[in-house]
Amino acid sequence: MRVKAIVKTQRQPGAEFTGFELPEMGPNDVLVKVAACAICGTDVHIYEWNDWAARTFEKSYGPLPRIMGHEFSGEIVETGKNVTKVKVGDRIAAETHIPCGSCFLCRTGKQYNCQNIKRFRTGVFAGYAVIPEFSAEIIPENVTYHTASLFEPFGVAVHAVSYVRMVGDTVTVIGAGPIGLFVAHLAKTMGAAKVFITDISDYRLGLAKKVGADAAINVRNADPVAVVKDATQGLGSGIVIETSGNAKAVKQAFEILRKNGSLCMVGLPPEPVVLDAGADIVWKAAVVYGIHGRDTFTTWEIAKNLVSSGRVNLEPFITHKFPFQDYKTGFDLAIAGEAGKVLLLPE
Amino acid sequence: MRVKAIVKTQRQPGAEFTGFELPEMGPNDVLVKVAACAICGTDVHIYEWNDWAARTFEKSYGPLPRIMGHEFSGEIVETGKNVTKVKVGDRIAAETHIPCGSCFLCRTGKQYNCQNIKRFRTGVFAGYAVIPEFSAEIIPENVTYHTASLFEPFGVAVHAVSYVRMVGDTVTVIGAGPIGLFVAHLAKTMGAAKVFITDISDYRLGLAKKVGADAAINVRNADPVAVVKDATQGLGSGIVIETSGNAKAVKQAFEILRKNGSLCMVGLPPEPVVLDAGADIVWKAAVVYGIHGRDTFTTWEIAKNLVSSGRVNLEPFITHKFPFQDYKTGFDLAIAGEAGKVLLLPE
Amino acid sequence: MRVKAIVKTQRQPGAEFTGFELPEMGPNDVLVKVAACAICGTDVHIYEWNDWAARTFEKSYGPLPRIMGHEFSGEIVETGKNVTKVKVGDRIAAETHIPCGSCFLCRTGKQYNCQNIKRFRTGVFAGYAVIPEFSAEIIPENVTYHTASLFEPFGVAVHAVSYVRMVGDTVTVIGAGPIGLFVAHLAKTMGAAKVFITDISDYRLGLAKKVGADAAINVRNADPVAVVKDATQGLGSGIVIETSGNAKAVKQAFEILRKNGSLCMVGLPPEPVVLDAGADIVWKAAVVYGIHGRDTFTTWEIAKNLVSSGRVNLEPFITHKFPFQDYKTGFDLAIAGEAGKVLLLPE
Amino acid sequence: MRVKAIVKTQRQPGAEFTGFELPEMGPNDVLVKVAACAICGTDVHIYEWNDWAARTFEKSYGPLPRIMGHEFSGEIVETGKNVTKVKVGDRIAAETHIPCGSCFLCRTGKQYNCQNIKRFRTGVFAGYAVIPEFSAEIIPENVTYHTASLFEPFGVAVHAVSYVRMVGDTVTVIGAGPIGLFVAHLAKTMGAAKVFITDISDYRLGLAKKVGADAAINVRNADPVAVVKDATQGLGSGIVIETSGNAKAVKQAFEILRKNGSLCMVGLPPEPVVLDAGADIVWKAAVVYGIHGRDTFTTWEIAKNLVSSGRVNLEPFITHKFPFQDYKTGFDLAIAGEAGKVLLLPE
Repeated sequence: MRVKAIVKTQRQPGAEFTGFELPEMGPNDVLVKVAACAICGTDVHIYEWNDWAARTFEKSYGPLPRIMGHEFSGEIVETGKNVTKVKVGDRIAAETHIPCGSCFLCRTGKQYNCQNIKRFRTGVFAGYAVIPEFSAEIIPENVTYHTASLFEPFGVAVHAVSYVRMVGDTVTVIGAGPIGLFVAHLAKTMGAAKVFITDISDYRLGLAKKVGADAAINVRNADPVAVVKDATQGLGSGIVIETSGNAKAVKQAFEILRKNGSLCMVGLPPEPVVLDAGADIVWKAAVVYGIHGRDTFTTWEIAKNLVSSGRVNLEPFITHKFPFQDYKTGFDLAIAGEAGKVLLLPE
Repeated sequence: MRVKAIVKTQRQPGAEFTGFELPEMGPNDVLVKVAACAICGTDVHIYEWNDWAARTFEKSYGPLPRIMGHEFSGEIVETGKNVTKVKVGDRIAAETHIPCGSCFLCRTGKQYNCQNIKRFRTGVFAGYAVIPEFSAEIIPENVTYHTASLFEPFGVAVHAVSYVRMVGDTVTVIGAGPIGLFVAHLAKTMGAAKVFITDISDYRLGLAKKVGADAAINVRNADPVAVVKDATQGLGSGIVIETSGNAKAVKQAFEILRKNGSLCMVGLPPEPVVLDAGADIVWKAAVVYGIHGRDTFTTWEIAKNLVSSGRVNLEPFITHKFPFQDYKTGFDLAIAGEAGKVLLLPE
Repeated sequence: MRVKAIVKTQRQPGAEFTGFELPEMGPNDVLVKVAACAICGTDVHIYEWNDWAARTFEKSYGPLPRIMGHEFSGEIVETGKNVTKVKVGDRIAAETHIPCGSCFLCRTGKQYNCQNIKRFRTGVFAGYAVIPEFSAEIIPENVTYHTASLFEPFGVAVHAVSYVRMVGDTVTVIGAGPIGLFVAHLAKTMGAAKVFITDISDYRLGLAKKVGADAAINVRNADPVAVVKDATQGLGSGIVIETSGNAKAVKQAFEILRKNGSLCMVGLPPEPVVLDAGADIVWKAAVVYGIHGRDTFTTWEIAKNLVSSGRVNLEPFITHKFPFQDYKTGFDLAIAGEAGKVLLLPE
Repeated sequence: MRVKAIVKTQRQPGAEFTGFELPEMGPNDVLVKVAACAICGTDVHIYEWNDWAARTFEKSYGPLPRIMGHEFSGEIVETGKNVTKVKVGDRIAAETHIPCGSCFLCRTGKQYNCQNIKRFRTGVFAGYAVIPEFSAEIIPENVTYHTASLFEPFGVAVHAVSYVRMVGDTVTVIGAGPIGLFVAHLAKTMGAAKVFITDISDYRLGLAKKVGADAAINVRNADPVAVVKDATQGLGSGIVIETSGNAKAVKQAFEILRKNGSLCMVGLPPEPVVLDAGADIVWKAAVVYGIHGRDTFTTWEIAKNLVSSGRVNLEPFITHKFPFQDYKTGFDLAIAGEAGKVLLLPE
């Protein structure tokens, strides 16, 4: 099946909006008419073709040319012959990590951390997408396709906060990209008494305050360690959620942390991190959690309940929407950090 | 020191507002000018002199005549010679369970469940109160005395919710007395997707909806097990918090619980509870937590942060305020279930 | 395929050793040449055809006549066309609870507590057995078939102890049937300082002492509550594991429990349990865990590691072995409580 | 009171065995006739007067000259006038971290991590020692003074293993100093299926195998990451306990860790640690626990139960005993890594 798609064709910055042939459906696949797509930080890396992308993209996802994108929602229009979980007409979002089901991690309840994790065979920034039945997650009736396209990254934030108790505590979120924004909002939703957030973009910090952060710190103008310590009688923050992946910010995250505090690391540092582990882990009696993807499907149940009950409204996190053909404008905004979530929409 | 106080003088229903001699202060005691008092369910039992009161009150608290009451706030006006933690002029609320500090439970971090737990030597429904330094808990500057007098029972609710994760889940609160009302509000504050509450008083159920419950069930008109199961595709409620202490309601609480759900028992059943433990604990893989008092002083830190940050507003829980001399009206309302928290105030 | 099997043919006590036709294999099934079988307490109920069996057996397992048994080990001799996880020649034991994979419990990591749990289509006390691929669990090379036939019930014990920390604590096991014996042994293996066990059979209590219990209490001669309290300065037991399912013993289990202790309920009480929940759950701040089956497949990983590493030796738990045709002798011993695990073996 | 003591007199390597004046007893102090002392790694640093000692010792402990040592046991011979918890004649060991009791950490159940932690006013390598009542921990009757002098460091190991479940899992201990040896033994005591241990001293690795390690890796001859991965089908170790404090070993500890594994950091790295946090924390979904001291007094209860019940025997960990005057030989052995625990004994 030939579709119009945003395709990574060259090992260099950029992408093309062009016709492209979808792979054949297998017996466990479903064909989805794409309703809405969202740009992920990973897409930005691939679009810019930075070192990480050059080093790992084709290895993990397959050779170029390849349709970009993985965050999306849509309607099932065809099902492979072994498919039983979903049917034509179902409205879905998609889990993008595909576990093997039989490794040690899968067997012991950690399929999200499968040793043989797979990705979609093809991207989703296209009129139609082919995904495995496993990934198709039916969305509640009262959730729009636009909102549903955010479920995958929102799930990472839901997972990140699932290891800590926030009620009545001070929470500091490092980084106000989409995941950081979701986390700040969830912290407030879960009863945090005070939520700090840091970033280098005033645009994103402004958005953070709109979605629930109590105090925004632009690390270009202020030392976040000093600000949080001053506001907590020198104690530091009981919970810190690191979403930036910046090595220097990770070090600060550990310094901001209170004794016996909990630090969740979501951002993926591309370079080595240097820590004063004696002071900031051992003597501090810190607890550190690495956060990886979503805890399928516990996370999806929580995320869907939060949105369908009206407890969480994801609309404010969508700051821009463009038709597929204007994808360059969308990527430019995401690169500049002048956006929350950017949606790309088929015509 | 002679004070005007609400005193339990007779082993029969009622109390007297009369002059009474406070006990001598010890070296670890503080003298507090009482600012506001709140009526607890226990006070109602003692006032009514029911079976429980007749059987246990004098054994646990000391012989009649005795000043009533333990929930209160006030200002320290004198300190014993060994007192170091607080000083004259401090505004305080009071922790009412006094641990020995050296039993197995105290040594292993469970001082709230001390084997030799003690109570105040005298009650606090009086112009002044003598309490041990241990019990005096300084309240934040921006918290009023009226609100602070609710900290002790509010702390029980904070403790009750501390064992469970509510975000995105269905929570059912059994009983809409003050503890149940606090719990319903906390559930919503902690991100519960849907909060059910049950009671037999339409007044209290109405108040519950004002403070955050999504659905109120009067068990005189409807079967709470059926209502919750119908609303959850037959699954039941992921979390149930039992605050009524009614034996029949406890059984229903277990039936309402979802498989692998968590049930927190706060209400103290005065009679034996009959459970289908095979179906409702073993096969259900239920987790049950007995809740006793506050987890001193972790609970106090959380409670104070919630209120002083504005995250929780306790004012709506105070439905009535009376001067000490009108104590009878206050107790009558509490007995009738036509009240949230009732405050009694010195002139 | 026609096999020699121990078959429940009549709705009355007893069984027959006779020829029987196995069901057709489906595409996801495997055919197993049975190497060793073990008698479970459930088999005893079915053999005796007690009230529970009459009420639930055919409803849960299917109509009579039906081959008995579910605990076994063997070698795969044929595989259905969709089978990929195992192959002909694999040596296996079997997980006997078959989850649907798509209900709320399965999706949220609790497939062992699936809302639509299924059992084998046919029993395993036969020369050959047909089971789904899902259930076939490859056993380590250095584990004998006899030992492997105990993995399923041993897994229940492994699951039961997975919610509590035993190191340096006092553990009381209620009931010295096979599950209680396994639990007592595991408690000692996990560093319990002192392990009490109760039963009414001196034979089983003797066996319990051989496999690790420090003190055995025959409840016909002594009050277990008094014995444990006396030995713990009145504190009670920090951990209690109830495996008897006897309603009176369950009540005692709660009385034996220390303040802030943890009680795991494994035994399935067939009748209502009456508890002083005020004293023994709420004021005690007890934590209670219902235990249901194995936490597939986390439990299997732990169980297999324990046995293959030599850390746990299951041989002493096998007290009797009989060929299939002597099944009556085996059942008689199990009914009398004069046995640990009884194996039934094909010729 | 003048005592014979091992005294740090100069800011340079070494110490003196000489007469020294004990500080005056306060009202909350007890005087202890010292029975046995043990050399801690910290004592070695102070003896050698390395960078860490020069930088922090006098700041944390007070000015030279100062009696050395803190691990010990003895008999109470005098009590201050406010002392109630212990009495003359009590046999004790000592908790060496003295919390303030009123900071946020103390109030919230983490007194072991007090913001204002204090140490003994004077050391204990002397005929008599003055310590606060708080620190005096009565030892069980059947425990010898020699064994009791190891309770403090043994408690660190008990604390370190308290955050993880070891039953049936693979545990890797980094470093075979006294803490590492205790941890290896505890891992085996708690049901670990396989225990690896690493060090650079064959003496200590040999001792490790005697006390329970299954496999000893001398990192001078072998790559511990490769050895553990090879032995675990490439999975890595489910639990890693880092006790060396060596920055390079810490990095290896993270590499050895299995996905979703737990790493407890006990050793105190004196220099910055460089981690590939993206791969080894975030993608691995690692959980990291900083371990600091003992969780007073939960740890003491467990440690005392383990030893007095005979479940743990600490004798094999004591490899050398010297009278005070031969302290130089003892320190030389500890420095060389050719010892387990070295005791120093008053005449």
